[in-house]
Amino acid sequence: MENIITLDYGSGGKKTSELIDNLIVKKLSNDALCALGDGAVLSGCDRLVFSTDSFVVSPVFFPGGDIGKLCVCGTVNDVAMSGGVPKYLSLSFIIEEGFPVSDLERIVDSVSAAARKADVSVVTGDTKVVERGRGDGIYINTSGIGFLEHGNLSPRNLRTGDKVILSGTSGDHGAAIMLARNKNLVEGEILSDCAPLNHLAEKLYSLGDGLRVLRDPTRGGVATTLCEFVEGTPLSIELSEADIPVLPAVKSACDILGLDPLYCANEGKLLAVVSPECAKEALEIMHGTEEGKNAAVIGEVTDTHAGKVFVRGIFGSRIVSKLSGAELPRIC
Amino acid sequence: MENIITLDYGSGGKKTSELIDNLIVKKLSNDALCALGDGAVLSGCDRLVFSTDSFVVSPVFFPGGDIGKLCVCGTVNDVAMSGGVPKYLSLSFIIEEGFPVSDLERIVDSVSAAARKADVSVVTGDTKVVERGRGDGIYINTSGIGFLEHGNLSPRNLRTGDKVILSGTSGDHGAAIMLARNKNLVEGEILSDCAPLNHLAEKLYSLGDGLRVLRDPTRGGVATTLCEFVEGTPLSIELSEADIPVLPAVKSACDILGLDPLYCANEGKLLAVVSPECAKEALEIMHGTEEGKNAAVIGEVTDTHAGKVFVRGIFGSRIVSKLSGAELPRIC
Repeated sequence: MENIITLDYGSGGKKTSELIDNLIVKKLSNDALCALGDGAVLSGCDRLVFSTDSFVVSPVFFPGGDIGKLCVCGTVNDVAMSGGVPKYLSLSFIIEEGFPVSDLERIVDSVSAAARKADVSVVTGDTKVVERGRGDGIYINTSGIGFLEHGNLSPRNLRTGDKVILSGTSGDHGAAIMLARNKNLVEGEILSDCAPLNHLAEKLYSLGDGLRVLRDPTRGGVATTLCEFVEGTPLSIELSEADIPVLPAVKSACDILGLDPLYCANEGKLLAVVSPECAKEALEIMHGTEEGKNAAVIGEVTDTHAGKVFVRGIFGSRIVSKLSGAELPRIC
Repeated sequence: MENIITLDYGSGGKKTSELIDNLIVKKLSNDALCALGDGAVLSGCDRLVFSTDSFVVSPVFFPGGDIGKLCVCGTVNDVAMSGGVPKYLSLSFIIEEGFPVSDLERIVDSVSAAARKADVSVVTGDTKVVERGRGDGIYINTSGIGFLEHGNLSPRNLRTGDKVILSGTSGDHGAAIMLARNKNLVEGEILSDCAPLNHLAEKLYSLGDGLRVLRDPTRGGVATTLCEFVEGTPLSIELSEADIPVLPAVKSACDILGLDPLYCANEGKLLAVVSPECAKEALEIMHGTEEGKNAAVIGEVTDTHAGKVFVRGIFGSRIVSKLSGAELPRIC
């Protein structure tokens, strides 16, 4: 590790893993934390699921959402990806002196609307204010509690032949934020996909053990999440580039900005790995929902390149690894 | 309300209440949130207690503790004051680019030590990094889950004749932080009282309904917390100035800094209001613990000045109201 924290440590990629593994988890070790899921599954009391996320997205308002909508969806989705039905949220603000009260109202309205859509209640909160120049408008932490409904979701369940399904187009949120920061670069507007996925996830729980793992590919995108699934295992994942849904506008924006949609953050998409037998049913479930209407099988679990993810394109195959460096700082 | 957020809104006093009542609770209304305790008591599942706090204390390291110890104690104490036995914590960092990794290690060590002392586990976390100048070293959010052990703690339980007990000296944390910021003002050192109070609180739960309410007087201090107890009720609280324990060094520092120890934050003290019959036992319980060894009855619930708190001193009585303005910004 380096001596100082750089933006790379917040990227959700290699450096973030390094920081978490070498410093935080080592010192605070316990079974729930070491599982390193998006949320912790806790023993006792009907098996609780508990998750936390701080949001520092910049800009605070962006096409398709704002930090208020994002903070609800992000935490709700983490609980849902852990197999829990989210129920309660906490909401904690760190506000910079001088922040407009009208913006705060807009944000709280978004929190309220997103919580209603996800069927969760904000039950506790906190507000801190820091001096001008010691923050950036507003940062929000949401923590969430849910009750476990599917108790066996883990990358450890992956088997050769399993199908990898993405619930919709890749990279919308990341592209929307980058465009919001570089307004004159590309014509038109890309909307963040920011949405609660808990209702979709709950439908997928019905697949039982055929549903191996769920994860929302946020920071680091689809590529980083899939790398985490097979890292250190004898398995590999083979993606078919032609099958990965990407909006044309996102593709163009990524080309201009020098980004890859596979590394761009999503905030309303999930990756589901399912048994070959369940793939058709899983796709049907997704296609029957608004959030999953563009779902597609994008790849398969293989055992040809232990621990690697690679993409088959028209010009051959390339290996994709975890995001290295802070390609997209403060995306969430 | 004003048009922009000022430091006053983070003081824990009048402006904070205004912001929470008029903006946040109004928009996110539900039973658990409207109770406005330090933690939410949730229905279902053996009655969970859920609490959240963001910590922005400056400086990050101070005599008697640091932000890592503080964030564990703060959340553990909020759960305990709500009648819950704290069990699980989340830990979420917002780190400014350039923050020394060695400082982060020291902080995580403090988190670990405090969690061990309080018998809680950190089970989930998150790390975000913001650019230089967009934060101030490190901000931490901890949320906590506990299981309800005393289900009937509320200021609504107060009756005339009840005794108000403070578990130790008033204002240590606030004075320690102010001195750490103004190093050359006062000779000597004042240590923050930062400590987990859950084991003390659990002992007090045995008092049953004789224990009316518990609260840790953090931002806004003893004065603000007691004002919140009787605000809008026909009851008043009468304090005896001579009975309020204050360390001589804290008294001197407050005199020099123009502060009142009654408004200075505490991070390892609790206020307990108990029935007259239980007062002796409550004091004995406290005196049998390290955290409560300086506990004292500091006042009584009366009905002479509806909604007011007043202090009887040697020169007569004065009314104390909630902290107005940000006398002590970023104290926690």
